[in-house]
Amino acid sequence: MRWSRQFIPTLREVPQEAEIPSHRLMLRAGLIRRLSGGLYTFLPLGLRSLRKVEQIVREEMDRAGALEILMPALQPADIWQRTGRLEAMGGVMFHIRDRQGRAMVLGPTHEEVTTLLAAQDIDSYRQLPRTFYQVQTKFRDEIRPRFGLMRAKEFIMKDAYSFDVDEAGVDASYEAMRAAYVRIFARCGLRTRVVEADTGAMGGRDSQEFMVLAEAGEDGVIDCPDCGYAANLERAEGRPPALPVVEGADGPSAEVETPGARTVEQVAAFLEVSPRQLVKTLIYLADDRPVAVLVPGDREVNEIKLQRALGAGRLALADEARIVEVTGAPVGFAGPAGLDLPKLADESLRGARGCVTGANRADAHRVRVDLARDAGALAYADLVFPCAGDGCPRCADGRLREERGIEVGHVFKLGTKYAEALGASVLDEGGRRRPPLMGCYGVGVTRTLQAVIEQRHDAQGICWPAALAPYPVGLLCLNTRDAACAAAADALYAALIDAGVEVLYDDRDERPGVKFKDADLVGFPLRVAVGERGLSRGVVEIRERATGVTDEAPPEAAAERIRTRLAELVAKESADGA
Amino acid sequence: MRWSRQFIPTLREVPQEAEIPSHRLMLRAGLIRRLSGGLYTFLPLGLRSLRKVEQIVREEMDRAGALEILMPALQPADIWQRTGRLEAMGGVMFHIRDRQGRAMVLGPTHEEVTTLLAAQDIDSYRQLPRTFYQVQTKFRDEIRPRFGLMRAKEFIMKDAYSFDVDEAGVDASYEAMRAAYVRIFARCGLRTRVVEADTGAMGGRDSQEFMVLAEAGEDGVIDCPDCGYAANLERAEGRPPALPVVEGADGPSAEVETPGARTVEQVAAFLEVSPRQLVKTLIYLADDRPVAVLVPGDREVNEIKLQRALGAGRLALADEARIVEVTGAPVGFAGPAGLDLPKLADESLRGARGCVTGANRADAHRVRVDLARDAGALAYADLVFPCAGDGCPRCADGRLREERGIEVGHVFKLGTKYAEALGASVLDEGGRRRPPLMGCYGVGVTRTLQAVIEQRHDAQGICWPAALAPYPVGLLCLNTRDAACAAAADALYAALIDAGVEVLYDDRDERPGVKFKDADLVGFPLRVAVGERGLSRGVVEIRERATGVTDEAPPEAAAERIRTRLAELVAKESADGA
Repeated sequence: MRWSRQFIPTLREVPQEAEIPSHRLMLRAGLIRRLSGGLYTFLPLGLRSLRKVEQIVREEMDRAGALEILMPALQPADIWQRTGRLEAMGGVMFHIRDRQGRAMVLGPTHEEVTTLLAAQDIDSYRQLPRTFYQVQTKFRDEIRPRFGLMRAKEFIMKDAYSFDVDEAGVDASYEAMRAAYVRIFARCGLRTRVVEADTGAMGGRDSQEFMVLAEAGEDGVIDCPDCGYAANLERAEGRPPALPVVEGADGPSAEVETPGARTVEQVAAFLEVSPRQLVKTLIYLADDRPVAVLVPGDREVNEIKLQRALGAGRLALADEARIVEVTGAPVGFAGPAGLDLPKLADESLRGARGCVTGANRADAHRVRVDLARDAGALAYADLVFPCAGDGCPRCADGRLREERGIEVGHVFKLGTKYAEALGASVLDEGGRRRPPLMGCYGVGVTRTLQAVIEQRHDAQGICWPAALAPYPVGLLCLNTRDAACAAAADALYAALIDAGVEVLYDDRDERPGVKFKDADLVGFPLRVAVGERGLSRGVVEIRERATGVTDEAPPEAAAERIRTRLAELVAKESADGA
Repeated sequence: MRWSRQFIPTLREVPQEAEIPSHRLMLRAGLIRRLSGGLYTFLPLGLRSLRKVEQIVREEMDRAGALEILMPALQPADIWQRTGRLEAMGGVMFHIRDRQGRAMVLGPTHEEVTTLLAAQDIDSYRQLPRTFYQVQTKFRDEIRPRFGLMRAKEFIMKDAYSFDVDEAGVDASYEAMRAAYVRIFARCGLRTRVVEADTGAMGGRDSQEFMVLAEAGEDGVIDCPDCGYAANLERAEGRPPALPVVEGADGPSAEVETPGARTVEQVAAFLEVSPRQLVKTLIYLADDRPVAVLVPGDREVNEIKLQRALGAGRLALADEARIVEVTGAPVGFAGPAGLDLPKLADESLRGARGCVTGANRADAHRVRVDLARDAGALAYADLVFPCAGDGCPRCADGRLREERGIEVGHVFKLGTKYAEALGASVLDEGGRRRPPLMGCYGVGVTRTLQAVIEQRHDAQGICWPAALAPYPVGLLCLNTRDAACAAAADALYAALIDAGVEVLYDDRDERPGVKFKDADLVGFPLRVAVGERGLSRGVVEIRERATGVTDEAPPEAAAERIRTRLAELVAKESADGA
C-alpha cells in the first residue's frame, strides 16, 4: 500500500482529550478518532492492527477446540430478568424499548444468550464438552468513559462459554482457555500477570484475571515477590501489621473531648496519636439492617468482602439520619462500646488494645479501648484492602507489593447458576437430567490493542511487535523528485510485495524529516530508507524500530534481507512472550 | 473439522417460525438460531459462510481502492438532528438515553459519522478521492421483522462512503463501486438485476439497486424485456393504458344513487362498469393542507411520487373527519367536480371521459364525467405504481413485467447535503473552499447470504456455491464400526487437509441414510462417501451436490481428484456469475 493512497492523518500536536500515552499515540498515529465520549472510529491503520489481534485470538481459540459463533448485541430484557441480572448489572447496561414496547438491552456479555442456545440444542452428555466463542461488539453505559479504548462505551470482546457435564470437565475446559490466553497475550507481545480475581456480578467461583502491568491501569494488583501470590486488589487478602500498642494502653478506657474532630486525620492530630491507633466504626445497612463495621483507621473497607462476610443481598453505607438514630451522635463519632448493633471487625483488630474509637457522643472519643474488653460481642473477618508492606496471606515472610494493572482477560467458573435459571439441562451417562456446568472467558480485544501500545512505546511513537503492526515494514523514498531514488524505491516496493511482505510505501512528496518522524510515530518494526546518499554507496538502510539497530543492503538484495529480518523478529517476539 | 467436534444441530422438522425456503433451510441446516423476533445467533456453519461473503466483499472493496475503517454503532442523536434525519428516519432507529441523559441512537447507516470524520481530517482536494468502507453491525427497529435475516432488527452491512471534489470524481467513484458490486454478487453465485431506485430518506440523486429475483422478495421490480429498462417498483414509471371509453361517454355527466357502495369494487359492481372506468379521488394532507388526488380506479397511489409532485415535506391521507369537512360527504364518495381544493391527477387520466367519480354526497356517484370538462383546474403528474402490461416509459413498444426481488445492494450519489449540514469542506485546486461530493454504497451482507440460499436450494437442502459453502467438501465415513472403512476415511481426511481442502468429516456413528440426508441438507458442493461396498471395488464416491454428477476414484488418488474438481467448480461458478 502506498502512503498517498492510504488514509493516515498523523497529528503533530498532542490531543487534549487524551490522558495516557497509548491514547495519545493512537490519536497521533492516526489509528482512531473520537466520535463522542467513549465512542471511537477505527481508521485504516488502527483497524489493521485490531484485525491482527482478532486473528491471533481466533487461532488460539480454534486450537483450543472452541467453536466460533456470533450472537446478537441486542437482547430481550426478560432473559436477564430470569437470571436476576437485570437488577444486578445496574446502570451499566443500555436499555431500549422497541416499537412494540418490548424491553431490550444491549448485551455487555452473553451468558444468557449462550445458555439459551444450549437449552435449545444441547440435550446429552454426548454433545459435551462444547466451548463456544465469539468476537463481538459489546456495549457498556460507563459513567466515566476514559483512556480511549480502555474504558469505552462500545468495544470488541472475545467472549467464550464452556459447557461440561461434570467438575472434571469444567476444570479441563477452564484450563484449556487459561492456556490459550497465555498464548494469545504472548503472541501479542504483552507481558501479563495472572491474578486471582473476584467474580463480581458474574456469579460463580474460580476466577483469574490477566493483567498488563502499567501505571495507567485502573485496577490494583497485589502480589508477593516471595511466593508468587498475585490477586486483583478487590480480591486480594493481606495481613496488615498489628495496631501499635502505646504507653499506658492497659489503663481503663475513658472518654475525652475532641471538639470538631471527626475524621481519622483530625482525631489523630488532636490526640497526637498515629492514625493507625484509631479504629473506624462505620455504620452499614445490610439488607436494610444496620451493622457496625470496625476497621483500622488507616484502612479502607472492601465492600465486596464485607458483603460476602455479612451474606447480604444489598449493602450500603447508612445515611446521616440513620447514623444519628442508631449511634445517638452525629457522623464521625461512632464507636463500638455501648452500641447496640451487630458488630463486625477486621481480622487485623483481633487483640487490639490501647486504641481510639468514637464515643457515640458529639465531639467525644474514647481512648485506651481494649476491643475484647470494651466493645461487647464482636465477629471478625477479612474486611479491608491490603496495602503494600502487608504480610503475604500465603507465605510466612513475604511482604506484599501493590501495582497498577490493565485487565485484558478474565476466566471464570460459573457453576450451574445460568443453566438452572434458564432451564438448560443434559442427560448424563446414567440417564439423569442435570444442568451443565459452565465457564466463561473474556478477552478485551480493543483494550488489548491499546494495552500493547501502553506497554510498547517511546517518546517518538509506537514500538509495535511485528505480529501486530499495521504494516510491519515501512519503505521510505527520501526524495521522490529524484528519478533514480524514486525508481529504486518503486523497484524495492514491487520486490517486497512479490516476497509477500506487508509494506507501507511512503511515496509522498515530503521532506525526509517528515517521513522519519511519521515512521517512528506509526511505528513500523522495520523502517527501510531509500535515499540518494545511500544509493550513491549502493545501499539502502534497514532500521529496527525497537532497538535502533541499523543495517545496510544493496537494493537488489534488500527485499530478501527484509523478509528474513522480519521473520526473525516475529520468532524472537513469540519466544520472548512464551 | 470432524462432525463430532463441530456443532451442527440439524433439524428434521420444518420450523414453524419460518415462512420462506431459505429461512427454513438456515434453521434446519443448523446455520442460525432465533433469539427473539428479528434477532439471530449464527452457529458455526452459518458464521463460516457469512465470513466468506464478508471476505469477498472486502477483497472487491480493496481492489476498488476503498479503505476499510470501523465506526461505532452507537451514535449521538445530535448529529442526526443536524442533517434533519432524526425525524426523517422515523421509528426505524433505536433510541437510547445514556446515564448522563444524552440522546443516542443505534446507527442504521453512517453518513453522519463518515462526514464528520471527513470534516475533521480531510481538508484538501489533494486528499481526494477517498472511499471508506466498513463491514459492521446495523440496527433497525423493524415493525415486522421477518424472513430470518432478510428483515432483521440486527444485521451486517458493508457500507461505503466516497468523497470527491467534483462531479467527474463522484461519477468515477460511483462507477468503481457499481463495478465492484457486480463482481461481489457474481462471486457469491447470485444472479442479480441492477435497477433504478428511489433515494428515499437518504437524499441525493442517482441511485441503483442490486436485486436478487425471487418470489420471496419484498420489493417489486418492474422491467421491460424489449429495452432492458428496470426499476424498483417504488421508482418505476409506466404508461398505464388509457381509460376505456364506453358507449354514451359523451353525454352530460349526472349524479346517480349508489346506496352503500363506497369501494371501487362495490361501485363498479353496482353500476356494472369495469373498475378501470372509475376514477378514485383521495384526500391527502400535504404539509397539513388538503389536496384531492385522482388516480384510475384500478391503480394505487405511489406516495413517494405524490410527495415529490406536491413538493411536500409531510404527506398523509386525511382522516375521516377531515374528509367529511372538505368534501361534505362520508369517506368513499369524493369526486373532483365542485370540490374546492387543489387537484392533482395521474398522467394516465389526461383526456379521460365517460368515467365514474364520487359526487361529494353520501350514497351518490357521478357518471359520464369528462375530467377536462367537469373537474375544474387539474394538474397532472405520474402518481401511480405501474403494473405488468403497462407501456414501457423508455421504448415505444415494450410492455412492462413485474417481478419480486430481494435488495442486496444499493449505490447512491448523495451530492453535498451531508457535507453542508455537518461542515465538511475542502480546498479545491483553485484555493476555494467547497463541500465535497459524496456517494454511499451498501451491501446487505447477512441478507446476501440468505439470498444465495433462496436462489440455490432444492427439496433436499442447500446447494451452496463452492465459494460460500461452510465446507466445500463433506467426507462421509459410511460405517465407522468397520475398521477398514474408518481407516480409509481417516486417511482420506488427512490427505484432504494436507491438500489444503476445507473438509467436514462426518465421523459420527450414524446410519448412512442419516449422513446422506444431513450432507444434502447442509449442502456440501462435493460429497465424498467412503463405504465398504465402494472400498471392495477399490473406490470412493465423489458426488456434485448441484448436478448429482457422480464420479469414483481410488482412495489414494481421491484427495487430488477432489482438489481439482473443487477448483473447477469455483472457476465455473465465477465464470457463470461474470
